[in-house]
Amino acid sequence: MISVMRYGHRIGRDKRTTTHVGLVARAFGADEFVLVGMDSTPLKTLENVVDNWGGDFRAIRIKNWRKFLRDFSGVKIHLTMYGLPLNKILSKIKADYTKSKNLLVFVGAEKVPPEVYELCDYNVAVGNQPHSEIAALAVFLDHFVDAQSIGFDGAVLRVEPQARGKKVVKL
Amino acid sequence: MISVMRYGHRIGRDKRTTTHVGLVARAFGADEFVLVGMDSTPLKTLENVVDNWGGDFRAIRIKNWRKFLRDFSGVKIHLTMYGLPLNKILSKIKADYTKSKNLLVFVGAEKVPPEVYELCDYNVAVGNQPHSEIAALAVFLDHFVDAQSIGFDGAVLRVEPQARGKKVVKL
Repeated sequence: MISVMRYGHRIGRDKRTTTHVGLVARAFGADEFVLVGMDSTPLKTLENVVDNWGGDFRAIRIKNWRKFLRDFSGVKIHLTMYGLPLNKILSKIKADYTKSKNLLVFVGAEKVPPEVYELCDYNVAVGNQPHSEIAALAVFLDHFVDAQSIGFDGAVLRVEPQARGKKVVKL
Repeated sequence: MISVMRYGHRIGRDKRTTTHVGLVARAFGADEFVLVGMDSTPLKTLENVVDNWGGDFRAIRIKNWRKFLRDFSGVKIHLTMYGLPLNKILSKIKADYTKSKNLLVFVGAEKVPPEVYELCDYNVAVGNQPHSEIAALAVFLDHFVDAQSIGFDGAVLRVEPQARGKKVVKL
């Protein structure tokens, strides 16, 4: 089971980026999106996407990120441009995950408390240049999850890939 | 040379997502960011990043996207969840790029005119689930560019990767 925790979401300002984080979590194979804070707007968008596009992905909201992070049973990673290169620690993370079966991916907005670097098992950089937490999450999951294994049961809509134009099938 | 074109940017609403698209373009190896429209706010952020973190990346603003896309000499791809799977057409795109030496990656916000699907050589899906243009760009470039080849000359700041905490070196 893979959880993605979004920290530092600011109402209004981060509405779109937080929604992107949630959509990427689902599309790239996470099972759960954990939003820290009081805003449930991004969760509604995600629920609509699950209703239409299927899968068992769930999106929840919590208040106490510290407790959640501390109590989480499994491998905890923090995506940050200050961390160690993904390609150097990916195999370690995979090995730990094989044992614990649970992974938490912590994704911040702008400022992340120093404590997070300590509470997580690995601080992982998808490149050490300023980029985007949405990009970091997508690339990390792309390397971590076997895309073939991702299922979206119960979908009402499905894309039929096309060379030109759009084709969406209603199921 | 790799250019990333951002279409459909709405002032205010897309400020953060467009900036993420530009940052990802730079961090993952593109040479140029082409913003369609009248808003130069995201370009200023990108210029500041280049000043501090180096490299030859340039960010420009254009008005006529249709002309730019039509006149572009090289491979043109459009990232869309309705397109053909990346892993099925990546080698074709790479082969074309080897010949033409230029690649344009078209990235939309919400609605993209049907014409774009025709003007581009390939409509490429990084997964057929709703996700994020920022994620699509990052994953595409991660598969397309040799990360080792990316240089950021002239940087004032550089991250020294750490297992814990942050270390930024002033050069």
